Amino acid sequence: MQNGFSQAEYRRRIESVRDRIQEKGLDGALVLDPYNVFYLGLYYYPGKRPVMLYIHNDGTVLAVTPAMEAHEARKVPHFDVVTAYQDNYAPGSDLYDCLKDTVTAAVGHVRQVAVDQVDLTAYRRLVEIFPELTVEDVVFPSRIIKSAEEIQMLKASAAYSDTMVAVGRELLKPGITELGTLNRMITATVDKMIEELGDVVYVPGGPAGALVPSGPRTALPHALPSGRTLQPNEPMILSCGANVWGYRTECERTFFVGSPSPAWRKAFEVMRRAQEMAIELMQPGAVCQDIDRQVLDFIRSEGYGDYVRHRTGHGKGLEEHEPPYIALGDETVIQPGMIFSSEPGIYIEGMSGFRHSDIIWVSENGPEVLTQYPKDLDSMIIPL
Amino acid sequence: MQNGFSQAEYRRRIESVRDRIQEKGLDGALVLDPYNVFYLGLYYYPGKRPVMLYIHNDGTVLAVTPAMEAHEARKVPHFDVVTAYQDNYAPGSDLYDCLKDTVTAAVGHVRQVAVDQVDLTAYRRLVEIFPELTVEDVVFPSRIIKSAEEIQMLKASAAYSDTMVAVGRELLKPGITELGTLNRMITATVDKMIEELGDVVYVPGGPAGALVPSGPRTALPHALPSGRTLQPNEPMILSCGANVWGYRTECERTFFVGSPSPAWRKAFEVMRRAQEMAIELMQPGAVCQDIDRQVLDFIRSEGYGDYVRHRTGHGKGLEEHEPPYIALGDETVIQPGMIFSSEPGIYIEGMSGFRHSDIIWVSENGPEVLTQYPKDLDSMIIPL
Repeated sequence: MQNGFSQAEYRRRIESVRDRIQEKGLDGALVLDPYNVFYLGLYYYPGKRPVMLYIHNDGTVLAVTPAMEAHEARKVPHFDVVTAYQDNYAPGSDLYDCLKDTVTAAVGHVRQVAVDQVDLTAYRRLVEIFPELTVEDVVFPSRIIKSAEEIQMLKASAAYSDTMVAVGRELLKPGITELGTLNRMITATVDKMIEELGDVVYVPGGPAGALVPSGPRTALPHALPSGRTLQPNEPMILSCGANVWGYRTECERTFFVGSPSPAWRKAFEVMRRAQEMAIELMQPGAVCQDIDRQVLDFIRSEGYGDYVRHRTGHGKGLEEHEPPYIALGDETVIQPGMIFSSEPGIYIEGMSGFRHSDIIWVSENGPEVLTQYPKDLDSMIIPL
Repeated sequence: MQNGFSQAEYRRRIESVRDRIQEKGLDGALVLDPYNVFYLGLYYYPGKRPVMLYIHNDGTVLAVTPAMEAHEARKVPHFDVVTAYQDNYAPGSDLYDCLKDTVTAAVGHVRQVAVDQVDLTAYRRLVEIFPELTVEDVVFPSRIIKSAEEIQMLKASAAYSDTMVAVGRELLKPGITELGTLNRMITATVDKMIEELGDVVYVPGGPAGALVPSGPRTALPHALPSGRTLQPNEPMILSCGANVWGYRTECERTFFVGSPSPAWRKAFEVMRRAQEMAIELMQPGAVCQDIDRQVLDFIRSEGYGDYVRHRTGHGKGLEEHEPPYIALGDETVIQPGMIFSSEPGIYIEGMSGFRHSDIIWVSENGPEVLTQYPKDLDSMIIPL
């Protein structure tokens, strides 16, 4: 597999953003969202020192970075200018002063500028520089339909998400802790990624991560990894996500270590059927919220309507969760090139949560499931 | 050690925020910053579904959470009301509607409200509810001076940051990868934390994490963990941070695997002396920027002025980096109860970076160094 994206891919991305800037009659766009910055070619540590890109309506790309990140930014061939601001608060070394000087020197005075996201404090500084600043993300619309190169990354990522579940499956026995399991899954998966890919790009959360709730904690959809020890005859959810060049997938499976009760088996099968139903409905032309409604109707008809805690699915790519959402209120029409999770969950407090998640690529021919780990009941039961 | 904070501690925190709200003549304060929410008692996963707290000027605390997080929020004894919003985008189930209804039902109509941080899109929804909304963080000023219970957490955390360096030290030999080392350090450290503490709280980044640059990558201050393999006669920086109940420390050490050159030893010793100098200057009454200036002057006088890429240190607590900063432009007067890193760095491209970091508690008696891993040259050299 090619290591990283081609220059042609980055050129297409920038042209697509540039075209949108022109369509909207803007002079340019400021890019502050770290995931949009990754998309445009710079992977960095998004801490408290912002990186700002400015894309002009002729496709010129200017980067303003902390002094610490400038070295990497200068390696990006399609950044026309890179300016570094100093790591202090003394007058004149401020990042906004630096941004103003950089933009003015490169493209002169600009008026109509959109910013993708901004907190109010930064906004108040930015409007001093760009008096007609509006808030609109002109980059994300390019991200929503994945390119052929992005699909390749997502396919590779899906195989590692599957690997991670398989590694975790071998560890599942009474006496393991959630965090002990998690850390061993990460170590084995990342070792394999480095061996096979040569190197990895580090994005927030690292190259692989997971949620690993055990026992009654499985009934909390976002239960964070804890020191809890798995007991006999308990469920455990392995909710695993690897990423390749920042492109994330997830493979989530609900296991049971011991002999599940008939009530557990029944709820499991309802979740299973709901998850398959959602996948089959992810066709080009379908409307996101209609899928959520049909899945909810099915779960309710089976008597589990009170145990739903979240939407059926979400978009995925550079972010863990990104639009569109398979959720009531999201009227997006599904198009080829979109990526979704399918993960309707049932959460019965004091008993168990039930959730599988797969990553689906909507191709011209319909939904293609990228994650492949088995999901039938027999594959999920680990006898004591 | 006590597992978690006492109710008396949370009561003091809320009273301190309430008093600040009254002093400023506000009706109440909205808390959106996840670290401020942790401080007030709810640890959760800060993804795209916000948690909002509202603190009234009589000390009433209202929480508005996603349905997924409500279960944990309802366990927090000092939250007077917890309301859950639904996980969809349909009219009427919106989180802002939910916030408005919750505040109105509990405390009636409020006008003068401050919010700690807010993006512009959320601000535009919030001013519809609170027409006189201002942006001011009334929680962070309580966090800047650490309480006795917080210092206990930080001391425990410092011991685990030291442990993590010690674990990493044993792994350092040619042939290891950065990420392979990192993952094994995390596994061993977190296993030990669970064994000794019984459980851990999971905050962003997990209970333990590190940066682990090797070879020439050490010259990049924030080089993210990669698949690179350590070669003979190379430096490697172990920049380790554990946290206990979210309270973070860091112990960073610059190692050399092989025989360092005289030039390497010389730069190392300048960094060492600069780091000790910064620690000694962290006295109650000192001004933050003066310490940065004195340290910079020393590094320049030794001929390494061109190799500085960042400030001398930063505050630490619930966040990796938090105010005050040991940096030019930060005029904060140091008070007992503040916590700082001391980490002046020297970064010589193509050769090596040099950075040790320790965590310093400024007590009434002066600086007390919480991290204890040895830092002399002999302890840093690992013969081949």
